[in-house]
Amino acid sequence: MDPMQLSPSQPRRIQMHPLDNVAIVVNDGGLDAGTRFHDGLTLCERVPQGHKVALVDLPVGAEVRRYNVVIGRTVKPVPAGAWVHERLLEMPPAASLSDLRTGTPAVVDRTDDLQSNLEQATFEGYRNADGTVGTRNLLAITQTVQCVAGVARMAAERIRTELLPQFPHVDGVVCLEHGYGCGVAIDAPGAEIPIRTLRNLSLNPNFGGQVLMISLGCEKLQPDRLMPANTIPIQSETGSPSLGLITLQDEQHQGFMPMVDAVVKQAIPHLERLNARRREPVPISQLVVGVQCGGSDAFSGVTANPAVGACADLLVRAGATVMFSETTEVRDAVEQLIARAATPEVAQQIVDEMAWYDAYLQRGGVDRSANTTPGNKKGGLSNIVEKAMGSIVKSGTAPISGVLKPGDRLAPGQRGLIYAATPASDFICGTLQLAAGMNLHVFTTGRGTPYGLAEVPVIKVGTRTELAKRWHDLIDLNAGRIADGELSVQEAGMELLQMMIDVASGRSRTWAEHWKLHNSLVLFNPAPVT
Amino acid sequence: MDPMQLSPSQPRRIQMHPLDNVAIVVNDGGLDAGTRFHDGLTLCERVPQGHKVALVDLPVGAEVRRYNVVIGRTVKPVPAGAWVHERLLEMPPAASLSDLRTGTPAVVDRTDDLQSNLEQATFEGYRNADGTVGTRNLLAITQTVQCVAGVARMAAERIRTELLPQFPHVDGVVCLEHGYGCGVAIDAPGAEIPIRTLRNLSLNPNFGGQVLMISLGCEKLQPDRLMPANTIPIQSETGSPSLGLITLQDEQHQGFMPMVDAVVKQAIPHLERLNARRREPVPISQLVVGVQCGGSDAFSGVTANPAVGACADLLVRAGATVMFSETTEVRDAVEQLIARAATPEVAQQIVDEMAWYDAYLQRGGVDRSANTTPGNKKGGLSNIVEKAMGSIVKSGTAPISGVLKPGDRLAPGQRGLIYAATPASDFICGTLQLAAGMNLHVFTTGRGTPYGLAEVPVIKVGTRTELAKRWHDLIDLNAGRIADGELSVQEAGMELLQMMIDVASGRSRTWAEHWKLHNSLVLFNPAPVT
Repeated sequence: MDPMQLSPSQPRRIQMHPLDNVAIVVNDGGLDAGTRFHDGLTLCERVPQGHKVALVDLPVGAEVRRYNVVIGRTVKPVPAGAWVHERLLEMPPAASLSDLRTGTPAVVDRTDDLQSNLEQATFEGYRNADGTVGTRNLLAITQTVQCVAGVARMAAERIRTELLPQFPHVDGVVCLEHGYGCGVAIDAPGAEIPIRTLRNLSLNPNFGGQVLMISLGCEKLQPDRLMPANTIPIQSETGSPSLGLITLQDEQHQGFMPMVDAVVKQAIPHLERLNARRREPVPISQLVVGVQCGGSDAFSGVTANPAVGACADLLVRAGATVMFSETTEVRDAVEQLIARAATPEVAQQIVDEMAWYDAYLQRGGVDRSANTTPGNKKGGLSNIVEKAMGSIVKSGTAPISGVLKPGDRLAPGQRGLIYAATPASDFICGTLQLAAGMNLHVFTTGRGTPYGLAEVPVIKVGTRTELAKRWHDLIDLNAGRIADGELSVQEAGMELLQMMIDVASGRSRTWAEHWKLHNSLVLFNPAPVT
Repeated sequence: MDPMQLSPSQPRRIQMHPLDNVAIVVNDGGLDAGTRFHDGLTLCERVPQGHKVALVDLPVGAEVRRYNVVIGRTVKPVPAGAWVHERLLEMPPAASLSDLRTGTPAVVDRTDDLQSNLEQATFEGYRNADGTVGTRNLLAITQTVQCVAGVARMAAERIRTELLPQFPHVDGVVCLEHGYGCGVAIDAPGAEIPIRTLRNLSLNPNFGGQVLMISLGCEKLQPDRLMPANTIPIQSETGSPSLGLITLQDEQHQGFMPMVDAVVKQAIPHLERLNARRREPVPISQLVVGVQCGGSDAFSGVTANPAVGACADLLVRAGATVMFSETTEVRDAVEQLIARAATPEVAQQIVDEMAWYDAYLQRGGVDRSANTTPGNKKGGLSNIVEKAMGSIVKSGTAPISGVLKPGDRLAPGQRGLIYAATPASDFICGTLQLAAGMNLHVFTTGRGTPYGLAEVPVIKVGTRTELAKRWHDLIDLNAGRIADGELSVQEAGMELLQMMIDVASGRSRTWAEHWKLHNSLVLFNPAPVT
């Protein structure tokens, strides 16, 4: 899979698997008709960068293989050296969700020096009473309903300017704002998803088990429905629940500023408890890494995602948790995923989540072809099958040890490679991975996105050197060096792991953190609004 | 409908219609068992404020009438003087959407002094090239996708601090942020709703026909799909389209700050054009008022909504536009609405919108009972039928002259009372009324909400004096004075109209504007996410 070590000016291509009959053009700007590769293959037409070139003559109906998987069949004859673009391909039918074979997970060698190093590696984190570990120390403001968002924003601003200077060990204040809570069918099938998402967001390890909640008073999503008593964290010092609740309609608030004052005042004991926290060395098995890709191009599955996959394998070997997601993007790789399920129960859970999503899309009158953006196609991804194969590469090769439903939280001590079922939408997936308990986020991008989250650090991995250079102050790691022949996939994975440890420890900050750049939380609500 | 003129300490109740067999308890804190009204009716149990008391003995199965409409049937005998609460009522079946009778709209006397005054009344507004009139002068930043929101926020902040001081006639900068644009089934049935909503938001009269748009580049909702060429406003000075488009993935942007710089630079010609605008006297027929209620109680339909209804009648007589909405809240008053349709076509459009919503809810596995919040019930509203009758009161008595689908914009010159079909969710309804072209918003509330919008002024009308006093710096107009016997409904409507003219003219600002308090835009997307 490593590229040929050639100078940048020479024509370069990457073949992902020896049995593939297409390869990816690597050179900036693509390659012109007549270009001759070192092995004699000559382009019969121009092929843009990141797009596929036929390695052999393909008759009509030929299987086009990438990652040693059929991504489509040709609809007309394609000669060797031709551009294999989306209009030449007919997408294969979706794999049925019945009769899938569960495979035997690969056995990982657990006796070498690397294994021992991984098990001894640590980062500096904030230990929580519930056993999770934070990578940042943030005060979060939970909100039952959108109606209170304006008050919450004003209170957060005042807490930042008036209080934070007195609490130097607290990194910041985040508003868990959202568009839910009222004007929704709160008892409809599927409504449990946004509700548990909001609940579990408040319990993210970076918030230190401190729940500061603003309620309006008349909303459908009442505080005790959002967080029943048994879900509220217990303060280890006092044994009492760590909940501060301000209800705006309560009669003691004589107007707007008194409401804001009440939030600011209630924040003080929470800030005191957060401010008492200190980083301490913890094993990297405490990392909970959500991986995601967005603004993908054909290099996503060639450079950045394989590098993340290599890193994921290292993390899983270290005993950490890696979550991969994006159901509609991996749906077409279901056979490959099932083959990696650690147990038949996990295989069944994967199938169940995909079947649920199939039904959800069907109810809305669409199918899986609704994925693949114009940008994906422009970047060389012909269809969702090709995108799926490139997407699951970032999950590495470890057995899949568990499955989370959308909005669910990891069980205490749940580790390993987890399929967290979420939509592929970048910001919805990120919101759900936060709810699952992610304390570090890795985001790969080919076309570039300024994506960020206020709640956890987001390491952005670029697929191409050109992008990494152009977006020098947004891309944290340049996986394009793999295509440039400067770095192996394994080396990139190791480099990413080191960066994760530094970022998780607060020793370095991501570009998104530097710019305070973040996207909004966006909930997944499959139920109607009213 | 006016209350008895009695001192605050005496027991008071309001009967909405002479044929009603229940009335509303007005006194703060409710009335205790044994309380005797002036006419001899004696409470046989405690009745909370805003809740209903039986005026006569009601046997099992009796029709309970309020607004001269059956809001339910008793499930056990209820004596005169008893509390008629939701557990005593069985909700009537929903009116069928077939065989509804279109009525003859009331003829309004158009020859009196009031009519002449209304036709001559003006406010100070900003005239737009498309014939609409703005009440504020704002630079809006349109966004194709959530991915760009962080960049947009940073650019808006820089425009505020670096540029606005040079453009003193511009009131502010608003980010039209949203959770749509990618990771969505963009061709699904219903996807046209969020797309046209975003398009029409950009065309709100308060933005002066200036479209400043940020695109990522690879998103599904491409700029020319969001705003096809023929929808972009034309500059009257140059005849060219008034569109400034920044695409973050464009290769000229060498990193994050250059992207932000590009937006800030592009804003300058837009700010110059906005800064050249001046307020001028325009007839109040140019007002486009969206009316809405939220955090309702039993007084919403007794004080604030009737006052808004009286004002709506004045506006319609003046030739202005009034939009009322909230499909699930008015669904149970469909017979009353149809009877007011100006034409059979309008009647059919009302039925079509309600049928669409019925099907949408059914597809999601719920029905109309999903409305009515815990706060509504606590405030004395037994069910959606009672809420519906109180809700449509704010539309006044004029004929319904048109219907807008969710996200649609008023046609040029479209006037009168419009049913803008939207969900009842406060923030979704507000977003859709903004898209429809609202330039002034009136929001009634009984339990209190800090609701506000950044895009247009929101006048908040409180239903009770106690709330208006307690939330003295959030409630703009106290309709509770109607229940206190200080003001008639007509007088309150006239006072509200005067306040509208002052606020629309920029002579006075609402409390939400004073505090810069606003909710987020929340789109109505009935289609799946991917």
